Amino acid sequence: MFKVEVCHSPKLYAEYENKDAIVVVIDIFRATTAIATAFESGIKELIPVATVDEAMQYKNKGFLAGAERGGQIVEGFDFGNSPLNFLRNKDAYEGKSVVLTTTNGTKAIDIAKESKQVIIGAFSNFTAVSEYLLSQDSDVLLLCAGWKDRFNLEDTLFAGAVARKLVRYSDKYTTIDDSTYASTYLFEQVRDDLQGFLKLASHGKRLEKLNLQDDIEYCLRFDTSNVVPALQGNALVPIYYK
Amino acid sequence: MFKVEVCHSPKLYAEYENKDAIVVVIDIFRATTAIATAFESGIKELIPVATVDEAMQYKNKGFLAGAERGGQIVEGFDFGNSPLNFLRNKDAYEGKSVVLTTTNGTKAIDIAKESKQVIIGAFSNFTAVSEYLLSQDSDVLLLCAGWKDRFNLEDTLFAGAVARKLVRYSDKYTTIDDSTYASTYLFEQVRDDLQGFLKLASHGKRLEKLNLQDDIEYCLRFDTSNVVPALQGNALVPIYYK
Repeated sequence: MFKVEVCHSPKLYAEYENKDAIVVVIDIFRATTAIATAFESGIKELIPVATVDEAMQYKNKGFLAGAERGGQIVEGFDFGNSPLNFLRNKDAYEGKSVVLTTTNGTKAIDIAKESKQVIIGAFSNFTAVSEYLLSQDSDVLLLCAGWKDRFNLEDTLFAGAVARKLVRYSDKYTTIDDSTYASTYLFEQVRDDLQGFLKLASHGKRLEKLNLQDDIEYCLRFDTSNVVPALQGNALVPIYYK
Repeated sequence: MFKVEVCHSPKLYAEYENKDAIVVVIDIFRATTAIATAFESGIKELIPVATVDEAMQYKNKGFLAGAERGGQIVEGFDFGNSPLNFLRNKDAYEGKSVVLTTTNGTKAIDIAKESKQVIIGAFSNFTAVSEYLLSQDSDVLLLCAGWKDRFNLEDTLFAGAVARKLVRYSDKYTTIDDSTYASTYLFEQVRDDLQGFLKLASHGKRLEKLNLQDDIEYCLRFDTSNVVPALQGNALVPIYYK
């Protein structure tokens, strides 16, 4: 049996670190949803970088580079972490290398890079991620990017959705982790109305204030993407298609 | 309005730190339950110390000193963090200064000591703690001691119980904190069968293996104590009686 655990904040990563695990990085609002959508729009690779400076260096070299801080596009960049941007401008991105830095998501990717594998998870590629994990023989760590290292509801609910799929519907996975129980239980209780429940969530409110209601709805939609992106070297590339 | 927040791990304290808040330290299995029970048994004060060495130094000076690590009494000490010990040996503790070091609880007390006030919360003094907080004009931070800096269910459920009482049943408190929503929601769903739900919890299983079933049951009982202990200088003293 392989184990499933949930880590609610990058700051707790050392307490959950498992070098034998596939780490699923989760940043529902909006980095990992945007990344899954970018691959669905046909990009070749996505290079996640930690700082705005690094993203700007890539931009100056001619890359398509985006940067988000505090929910907004950083000045000097053409895009941030809106998944709908990648959907609406598909032609501009198809076949391209894209560079992206975000408040929480890219940091979580970076922190996990010594693990067995880092993949990108969001409601948008839920079934692809679940099927991929079920096809592997490996522990799984669901790493919530959170909001500035704080616990958040939307990442927790997605972690619960995946954990439930793995533990409940396969004989391969088990858990004795309290975070996993709590996340799974929460997801089961509210899965019929994620959006209603998440109206409570602090980060949802933050995005609503920024008039990003369309993005929020898109970020909570299941299976708009069939791709699992994974880190290879310094870039995310598609490794599995549902 | 004053705000209520929940911090799931001492390691996330910096992300939730609020010097204007009364911090409720929560370590249900078993430090804060033991401390509330010790005061119910009439001790004068309890000096929480970080290390086994410090506890031993106090013991050598003639103090009643206890030490727990990994759920068990440390060799050389007469007691650890079993609340039932304080209940069963009331005569030995009445009026005394007691010294205690535990795996998680005493560390959480130490980390919060720069806040407005540190008080001790457990199901055993739930109503006393809630009434005390409702009588104050102050933000509240519910600090879960967790298990070795990991999220745990029992501390989360108690945090949810207190947050619900403050936010739902008074006009004084509000929250926009995702941890608080999650904790409150969980508590509301399972409050009629805390023990059943917590059979899942990793720490409960750990204690069961140590044959501490009586302690577990006691730790989940509401209102066996009327006392709110608070940190004054280096010692916890009773500051409020229901």
